[in-house]
Amino acid sequence: MSLEVSQKITIQKVKNSKINQVDFNNLPFGQVYTDHMLVCDFENGKWSSPKIVPYGAISLDPSAKIFHYGQSVFEGMKAYKDAQDDIWLFRPFDNQKRLNISSKRLAMPELPEAYFMEGLEALLLLEKDWIPTTKDSSLYIRPFIFASGNGFHASPSDKYKFIIACSPSGPYFGGKLKVLIEQHYSRSANGGVGFAKAGGNYAGQFYPTNLAIQKGYQQVIWTDDTTHEYIEEAGAMNIFIRINDTLITAPTSDRILDGITRKSIIEIAKDQGIAVEVRNISVHEIIEASDNGSLKEMFGAGTAAVISPISGFGYQEKDYVLPELDNTFAATLKKQITDIQYNRSADKFGWRYSVK
Amino acid sequence: MSLEVSQKITIQKVKNSKINQVDFNNLPFGQVYTDHMLVCDFENGKWSSPKIVPYGAISLDPSAKIFHYGQSVFEGMKAYKDAQDDIWLFRPFDNQKRLNISSKRLAMPELPEAYFMEGLEALLLLEKDWIPTTKDSSLYIRPFIFASGNGFHASPSDKYKFIIACSPSGPYFGGKLKVLIEQHYSRSANGGVGFAKAGGNYAGQFYPTNLAIQKGYQQVIWTDDTTHEYIEEAGAMNIFIRINDTLITAPTSDRILDGITRKSIIEIAKDQGIAVEVRNISVHEIIEASDNGSLKEMFGAGTAAVISPISGFGYQEKDYVLPELDNTFAATLKKQITDIQYNRSADKFGWRYSVK
Ligand SMILES: Cc1ncc(COP(=O)(O)O)c(C=O)c1O
Ligand SMILES: Cc1ncc(COP(=O)(O)O)c(C=O)c1O
Repeated sequence: MSLEVSQKITIQKVKNSKINQVDFNNLPFGQVYTDHMLVCDFENGKWSSPKIVPYGAISLDPSAKIFHYGQSVFEGMKAYKDAQDDIWLFRPFDNQKRLNISSKRLAMPELPEAYFMEGLEALLLLEKDWIPTTKDSSLYIRPFIFASGNGFHASPSDKYKFIIACSPSGPYFGGKLKVLIEQHYSRSANGGVGFAKAGGNYAGQFYPTNLAIQKGYQQVIWTDDTTHEYIEEAGAMNIFIRINDTLITAPTSDRILDGITRKSIIEIAKDQGIAVEVRNISVHEIIEASDNGSLKEMFGAGTAAVISPISGFGYQEKDYVLPELDNTFAATLKKQITDIQYNRSADKFGWRYSVK
Repeated sequence: MSLEVSQKITIQKVKNSKINQVDFNNLPFGQVYTDHMLVCDFENGKWSSPKIVPYGAISLDPSAKIFHYGQSVFEGMKAYKDAQDDIWLFRPFDNQKRLNISSKRLAMPELPEAYFMEGLEALLLLEKDWIPTTKDSSLYIRPFIFASGNGFHASPSDKYKFIIACSPSGPYFGGKLKVLIEQHYSRSANGGVGFAKAGGNYAGQFYPTNLAIQKGYQQVIWTDDTTHEYIEEAGAMNIFIRINDTLITAPTSDRILDGITRKSIIEIAKDQGIAVEVRNISVHEIIEASDNGSLKEMFGAGTAAVISPISGFGYQEKDYVLPELDNTFAATLKKQITDIQYNRSADKFGWRYSVK
């Protein structure tokens, strides 16, 4: 860590760690929190120095704008521990940049890179015993910023809080996913905030997702809001479709989150000699491919869910089942990306980031 | 009030009121809060009895879903005091119903009518000295519900808080508004949450609105996200356009909030013999009307802003100025609706609701 910022990060440690209360062999996703958090306040037009304090309650006035006007953005990252107990992050600067892209779209202040990175590293070094080493587990990291200023006028807040909290976590999904291709509801508008990791994007998905769950699906695949013809993304994952031996994924746009897993998968696949097409893909093309047997795989890709294979999809009251293959792209690509993330393989792309 | 619920509303009063610190002749909008608030918690699948407590800070875990996934809905209402010191609400059951419509779309629990209405009335009776009687002032009322349950999994919260806070307030806008008809950004998607009073809908408007403010406008007029050709609504107002002697406003849809002021204005105007058309209206029709002199008025309508006349609009780098008329529809309709709201006229529509 460079000294300019880290000298200023004050650390207030807990008296007693909660770590002994945690069953690291049965970790849920995102429900157990570590002993400390990083907090940084924006006031009078500038960010204060980050502080590490005991993880604990935040106190807000009932008029705080977060309750009323939805100014909140977040990131999702993971810290991995290898066999030598070294700590690794995966492309963390991309999360840092994306947080600022999200903030800008919601008229929230951007955060200097050093505050994010050095705050995060100091926190991880303090919490390193919390990084699980059980299979498929990692320390899920949640950096977020929300409007903490007060007022019922529908205008941007003058105060914000940046927090990083950490949660030792197991897998996000249990098994393979059955998904519903959405034909009525939508996730984002042209010219809207879909490309931002903004809180409001998620709340809007819950009701349609509940309807899908009631019908026996686990996730909704969103389509464009104008024609419902083109595949966009899922709840917290970008979507890949394999037709014959070509891997296809939608281009990013102002409606789709520019996923770090997505772009890494594209690069790894290309490097493996897999044909990758980044282009619009219509539901009809997928149905046709399913009907003629060329549809081989579908999977979601995201930090939380890593790579989640899809077993089948529903579309207009009909269910389509994907074949059960050996040696899937999903399995190969998942092994490759997690081997890089957990430092089990060489890092030819330069994505791994050592925290020490 | 019926006894079933009100018996259960517990009231914990402040020791010392803050009311003497308030300058009722210089009230800002939504920045001063009364002594008490109503709070009601949803847990284990049900709402607890509403409580009135001193207005004060709310304490939340950093993992509370409001910070991450945008589950928040709200309403905006006003209480008016007449010359006899009687207290009035305007169509409050419509706010109560709309809150539930918003909640449902965000997968949040609906609130029983009695909790809302009797909680609100008990609170207003306690805070009646806070209802201002200075010109254009009222007690702005903010009922809201947000996700207070914890967890980083992107799924609905299992806990919620319903709160009603009150703010003695002056006018929302200063003078006439200069607006920009938006051609790139948008507020809501087909199949999205635009019709809900959801927090995230507002955060998404701030950045484009800031861009408009930098160009000298005060508000953005949103257009549909597919073609940017049809007028939808403004930040917190529905929009009316007068061409010759016909008043036109867009039909409500899943992209547009079903405003209570809007529908009241439609009824009052019709009752006055004004021709009203509820139909899609394109930017081109407005430009043409401006060019040939038939565009007479534009105004916004909403609880906070009441009726806000528009002086002119920008569209594709060009400014269009509206004529300065005597006896505008805006002025007539504003007088009629506020006379009903403040109990200065008969209430032929049955919209006024007495709180006692
Ligand atoms: C809407 C959405 N799409 C895609 C992703 C995947 O992005 P990433 O791979 O950067 O985690 C996420 C999760 O972060 C998401 O929330
Ligand atoms: C987006 C939006 N449109 C319109 C309105 C006007 O609705 P109402 O007249 O019910 O206040 C509001 C404010 O409530 C609003 O937030």
